Amino acid sequence: MVAAEKTLIHGIRRFASHSRNRAVIHGIGDDCAVLRVSAGQELLVTTDFSIENVHFRRQWHPARSVGHRCLARGLSDIAAMGGEPLACFLSLGLPANLPQRWADEFLQGLTRLAERYGVQLAGGDISAAPEITADIVAVGQVPIGKSVLRSGARPGDVIYVTGELGGSAGTLKQLFAGRKVRPSPAGRHFFPDPRLEAGAWLRRGGLPSAMIDLSDGLSIDLGHICEESGVSAMVDSAKIPVARNSSLDLALHGGEDYELLFTAPGKVKMPAAIRGVKVTRIGSITRKDYRSAIRILDDNGRARALRPLGWQHFRL
Amino acid sequence: MVAAEKTLIHGIRRFASHSRNRAVIHGIGDDCAVLRVSAGQELLVTTDFSIENVHFRRQWHPARSVGHRCLARGLSDIAAMGGEPLACFLSLGLPANLPQRWADEFLQGLTRLAERYGVQLAGGDISAAPEITADIVAVGQVPIGKSVLRSGARPGDVIYVTGELGGSAGTLKQLFAGRKVRPSPAGRHFFPDPRLEAGAWLRRGGLPSAMIDLSDGLSIDLGHICEESGVSAMVDSAKIPVARNSSLDLALHGGEDYELLFTAPGKVKMPAAIRGVKVTRIGSITRKDYRSAIRILDDNGRARALRPLGWQHFRL
Repeated sequence: MVAAEKTLIHGIRRFASHSRNRAVIHGIGDDCAVLRVSAGQELLVTTDFSIENVHFRRQWHPARSVGHRCLARGLSDIAAMGGEPLACFLSLGLPANLPQRWADEFLQGLTRLAERYGVQLAGGDISAAPEITADIVAVGQVPIGKSVLRSGARPGDVIYVTGELGGSAGTLKQLFAGRKVRPSPAGRHFFPDPRLEAGAWLRRGGLPSAMIDLSDGLSIDLGHICEESGVSAMVDSAKIPVARNSSLDLALHGGEDYELLFTAPGKVKMPAAIRGVKVTRIGSITRKDYRSAIRILDDNGRARALRPLGWQHFRL
Repeated sequence: MVAAEKTLIHGIRRFASHSRNRAVIHGIGDDCAVLRVSAGQELLVTTDFSIENVHFRRQWHPARSVGHRCLARGLSDIAAMGGEPLACFLSLGLPANLPQRWADEFLQGLTRLAERYGVQLAGGDISAAPEITADIVAVGQVPIGKSVLRSGARPGDVIYVTGELGGSAGTLKQLFAGRKVRPSPAGRHFFPDPRLEAGAWLRRGGLPSAMIDLSDGLSIDLGHICEESGVSAMVDSAKIPVARNSSLDLALHGGEDYELLFTAPGKVKMPAAIRGVKVTRIGSITRKDYRSAIRILDDNGRARALRPLGWQHFRL
């Protein structure tokens, strides 16, 4: 082990000690972490890359934001299953010339979000890498058989989203245009708050028939629900809650808002907000249409196919 | 999602279907995988990077070997806890110009090893990356409280290793010297077989007081046992089982043999082989010596400090 690696590992151990979860029996310091899932619970596992110049740019994203977003991506997947997060694992590849301060601030951003949700950093790996490469593993639990999957949407179900859409892509568009954007804790781009409370609340109530988080953009992620459920969807453009710094186009195709997209039978009485997060009805599930998985109603009440474009448009 | 990514995901889903494990309730295709751990079992989780030009070179290592070694690293960590592997998750970052064939053969190498041990590929992530970057998550189980940790070694315990040491570093040395080395399925470099059966056998018998896998090299990994257990160690150089293509120096400091290093009280009757894998007694645990964590006896019976050098010497 080289000296720099040792320093980094000590830093990680120190940060890891800030947030504990009782599911973690043995954390960092052995060949594997040992976790205990509560009786009657199943385990949720998800992994997500955060790679320099693919998912972020060092000149645009402060290290704290990169660390926060890295973990937020994993926690948002846990939220989309209706789960409770327990632990995370961080594999971190760093260029040899990266200032120690960058790694410290990255860990601070990640740890602060971990603390907010009681998630313990329980292990990982460290390596040299040509560019900053983080892979986060998020582990959670959910009562047996109660995960909210992508495959449960049925014709007649109503489609909902939390929060507002296109905000993250709106910020990215400003960055691409060369504007200086202050990395504010509000907004969905720099420090998105995963919708863990809303997701768990919905799952406890047994309300959603299907759920996914909006990481790739509405047109792609709603497509995943349609594909896994064997259905189609009709979205009403006038109903899409477009973020203030954004546009309908970015709200339909921009990624990384980390809001929840879910469906529920029409008879379900859905509140207008869950734990302070707005819920908006944006359309409905229809029988499978082989010509177009998703259609969208324009202002004049005309329907057209909504093609999956997704966030590769805005890819760094 | 770009077309190439879709092709890759379909390839991964196809490979994933080759090896099933009943612990995986929902595999690839949702926001998270859902796993069910058997009653009375704890969960083991470990993550390991395999990065081009750090852990392998494309001109030296066939893609099948890179895929095999990627998963072997994770399974070896499960073996070192005495666990049973269940599932793995693969985060794969690939350069845009990489031939599809390379990715296919990488997945074949990984899947063949997964099949051998009934491990299901249950999820992961895909991204563009400047160089091939794989991060494997291995998930396993072990009866509650029965994990073999690094921290249980006590003065008087005997130190054992499985197999032979230095073989992987011996091959790497040949590669560095510009020799053509045939990537044979024997030997520990290209297709190391993780010691899962030996590890589980030892754990079931309650024999080891501490265990670790030899990934960084004996001088580093025995150091981890000493540090976590608060003890020191005396190794007898004449007893080290040196691989045929290697040397004592490489056996002491070369990494990636993925053998098991473990300790057991002197009164334990240890067999000479476990499931066909040789077991060799190489030294003993002593009380903590603050001057040198590990000492080594030379041919003349003189003891000297064994400094942790480890596999960074052989780093690509």
